[in-house]
Amino acid sequence: MNKYTGKSVFGGIAIGKIMVYEKGEHQVKRVKITDAEAEKNRYYEAVETAFKQLGELHDKALREVGEANAAIFEIHQMMLEDDDYKESVEHIIESQMVNAEYAIAQTGDNFSQMFAAMDDEYMRGRAADVKDITERLLGILSGNTGSGVDADEPVIMVAEDLAPSETVQMDKSKILSFVTQKGSVNSHTAILARTMGIPALIGSDIVIDESLNGKLAVVDGTNGVVYIEPDEATLSVMQEEQRKDNEKKALLQELKGKEDVTLDGKKIKLYSNIGNIKDLANVIANDAAGIGLFRSEFIYLESDTFPTEEEQFNIYRTVAESMAGKPVIIRTLDIGADKQCDYFELDKEDNPALGLRAIRICLTRPEIFKTQLRALYRASAYGNISIMYPMIISEQEVDKIKVIENEVKAELTEQGIEFGNPKSGIMIETPAAVIMSRQLAKKVDFFSIGTNDLTQYTLAIDRQNTKLDDFYDAHHPAILAMIRMVVENAHAEGIWAGICGELGADTTLTEEFLKMGVDELSVSAGKVLAVRKVIRETRIS
Amino acid sequence: MNKYTGKSVFGGIAIGKIMVYEKGEHQVKRVKITDAEAEKNRYYEAVETAFKQLGELHDKALREVGEANAAIFEIHQMMLEDDDYKESVEHIIESQMVNAEYAIAQTGDNFSQMFAAMDDEYMRGRAADVKDITERLLGILSGNTGSGVDADEPVIMVAEDLAPSETVQMDKSKILSFVTQKGSVNSHTAILARTMGIPALIGSDIVIDESLNGKLAVVDGTNGVVYIEPDEATLSVMQEEQRKDNEKKALLQELKGKEDVTLDGKKIKLYSNIGNIKDLANVIANDAAGIGLFRSEFIYLESDTFPTEEEQFNIYRTVAESMAGKPVIIRTLDIGADKQCDYFELDKEDNPALGLRAIRICLTRPEIFKTQLRALYRASAYGNISIMYPMIISEQEVDKIKVIENEVKAELTEQGIEFGNPKSGIMIETPAAVIMSRQLAKKVDFFSIGTNDLTQYTLAIDRQNTKLDDFYDAHHPAILAMIRMVVENAHAEGIWAGICGELGADTTLTEEFLKMGVDELSVSAGKVLAVRKVIRETRIS
Repeated sequence: MNKYTGKSVFGGIAIGKIMVYEKGEHQVKRVKITDAEAEKNRYYEAVETAFKQLGELHDKALREVGEANAAIFEIHQMMLEDDDYKESVEHIIESQMVNAEYAIAQTGDNFSQMFAAMDDEYMRGRAADVKDITERLLGILSGNTGSGVDADEPVIMVAEDLAPSETVQMDKSKILSFVTQKGSVNSHTAILARTMGIPALIGSDIVIDESLNGKLAVVDGTNGVVYIEPDEATLSVMQEEQRKDNEKKALLQELKGKEDVTLDGKKIKLYSNIGNIKDLANVIANDAAGIGLFRSEFIYLESDTFPTEEEQFNIYRTVAESMAGKPVIIRTLDIGADKQCDYFELDKEDNPALGLRAIRICLTRPEIFKTQLRALYRASAYGNISIMYPMIISEQEVDKIKVIENEVKAELTEQGIEFGNPKSGIMIETPAAVIMSRQLAKKVDFFSIGTNDLTQYTLAIDRQNTKLDDFYDAHHPAILAMIRMVVENAHAEGIWAGICGELGADTTLTEEFLKMGVDELSVSAGKVLAVRKVIRETRIS
Repeated sequence: MNKYTGKSVFGGIAIGKIMVYEKGEHQVKRVKITDAEAEKNRYYEAVETAFKQLGELHDKALREVGEANAAIFEIHQMMLEDDDYKESVEHIIESQMVNAEYAIAQTGDNFSQMFAAMDDEYMRGRAADVKDITERLLGILSGNTGSGVDADEPVIMVAEDLAPSETVQMDKSKILSFVTQKGSVNSHTAILARTMGIPALIGSDIVIDESLNGKLAVVDGTNGVVYIEPDEATLSVMQEEQRKDNEKKALLQELKGKEDVTLDGKKIKLYSNIGNIKDLANVIANDAAGIGLFRSEFIYLESDTFPTEEEQFNIYRTVAESMAGKPVIIRTLDIGADKQCDYFELDKEDNPALGLRAIRICLTRPEIFKTQLRALYRASAYGNISIMYPMIISEQEVDKIKVIENEVKAELTEQGIEFGNPKSGIMIETPAAVIMSRQLAKKVDFFSIGTNDLTQYTLAIDRQNTKLDDFYDAHHPAILAMIRMVVENAHAEGIWAGICGELGADTTLTEEFLKMGVDELSVSAGKVLAVRKVIRETRIS
């Protein structure tokens, strides 16, 4: 048994096999073979396995996120059986007498390039699907399922570090826990773990090598320990802990359907944050009363080029419809800083966290901003959508946004396109916005305090920089004082104020927040019921 | 005539020849020659010119900064005449039949390496001097005086950009104006220009090539224009402007010796910022009542290794003695972010402005901190020294500093070493410190608001990132509100509060600051008299 430690970002116990995350695509070697038939059989078997995996994924998606989102797996199955693809692989194996991996990789490259070069937008979209099935086949053949996480059973994902763009591609249903060597308590891996409600350790001293793959391990997220090949005594203690943990979770389940109201009757808006349309199932499963922060940048991060108005409209509409009249607060894109999209062609900056990001990009490049706003306005005809703007520092910015909002509405009206009447709010995540909150409250419909960025700017500490952990204090009294100030100023102008940063899910602070008058808490899906419990046990006055 | 524009960081008119700044050391080519005697004569003539230059520099320094600081130029003169150096140059020219530049550069390298390897600390210090005289000789021979700025007459320095480490090495007396393509209004070039009180443009569209060298130009710092080879009409208009400007400056001179007091009798501490011991002459010439911000990091930036306690003690003592009982507020080292010292071996950071810098380095590496504190405590026996700590975000940091201060005092006492009783203050330059200012005021003797960093963190805008100029607002109402809050909290606890950021020198705000109750303004030397004028014309009540 090996024992390592790490900083916990979500509690609970995970027991399962380890998968070491490998960066990027599969490295494929060209190997000469002598038996073409045997090699082709390896390919056929991989196709069969992949077909079965896709069928399971389809059924799971159907249950969790509905038919529209499940259809992609059927398309992948069809592609697996495509005659042209199959003939190309067979031909390369036979004519060059090479291994199946090489033939598949070569075919995948050729086909995806061919699709990418096509005139038709739909067909160009298929280039990514060809890559996906190719990666899936290579993963099956190598036995190492790599970034796709196509393991049969859910795994404990061990990695040096995980970038937002990497976690975005993972099949979250196959992950029991994260253990990373790097990362900070507010990094994206940490946020993801909290959304999924799974135990996770960051900054771990775990020694990573391929031999870890498939080994049994236990992650104790509560105490920040990971046991690799645990002895029987440890395993049984941990199993008992897991059982108790599940019992607690089951108790929380009883809070489903209950109102978010304090003992003395104040109703609280208890919403959930989502970073991907796939999180929607978690939100609904955990009975959040709405979505308090829809991080729309995932649409941009998952795309190879600017998402069209139509693509965005479909996503926003799907979410609004799925939430069936419950509030959905969609934040306009927050690209820049640690969230980079190549096709934005942003310059490298000395201090990206203090750089051209979020609303600053939108106001500098209004053509990008307008596409998103048009999609949001159109989708708001299909549900209860509010729009929220990030990184605001001044009244002038809000004024500029209003001008653009009005242009968008005028254009849609002129074109005879239907749109709704979404409310407009802003993130309070810069110290400037806190100080100006009284004036800003006159100009918007609501505030949502982004405690992660607000803390990083207030303390002048990059939240990803682990060297500063000794100086960073998530409960810094300045942050609590600022939250109080924002809530008071919001109420003075008759608007509501909530918290959508990680601090909002910190149940040790929930009572204090409610006493400050905080109206809304938007938390990761896995935390909704735990926060509901505290709300229902709190007396404000 | 060519006309370019730029953003002005200090007003006024400069008329003179252009020098294009070239990065790094002189590039020396090895060229075969046929006449060794002619080449040696070139060397002798360069030595003669250098000797004369050094004599002039010595006399100037003697007048401005006193004998202790002037002595270095006499040492350089002695080195120029050193027989070993001379013989080495002659030998290389004769034996290899190469140009004087190559022989000098080779000799300089050899000698400085030799000195650097010596056991004796004094001799090791001479390595830098050998490099200096070598650079000076090469500059004279090339006619291009490069980074040393050893021109005969003061020049208009044109550069792509200037790093703090580059400006540190410049002979400021030879610079009439700066014009750079990059930089922001709060960059170090800008701060330097303000200290020197010379017109400067940054973010200029000037096209830089070597042909600019030696061309006559006019920099109109007030209107942000530079004219190259101005026509007669322009030149005469500018000469008239310069005359008027000088007249105004002369009028300001009449304010020397006058008290810094408002019309209704409130005395204001009008101090000056210094970034180098060489600025001391400017401070005294402009009649500042003290030094409000001594940026001690220059001692570290100018050194190749950690400055010893003795080196630091001598500098602090010199400044304290030169100021003859007037207050000298010395800020402990603010390394990190854009001020990097190789020998600190700091890791590269994603967001250095939000990184391990200033007090964070000192608290993480107390051995460095203690060396500086020992030097400061010892020097405080020789004058009116206060110590100021940068980048504070919490009471806990102040508590930790006090523990270290007490250790230093106990050690000095035990060792029987004399020390004074300096006051301790902190920079208020993070939003956290602003919000916590009431609590912090209980623990320190004074506050000095660093508006540059405070603005960058409050607005979440890197002040060096020119792409964000449209979003940056130096007069942002949040900053003014924060200054008011800090002053009120300071007074509530009976301590004084001042401003040492660039905003303190902004005479359009002086009246507002005084009405807020600001007790101290520490400004660049060139601004002291202009601020005094406003103070004396303001009625607070």
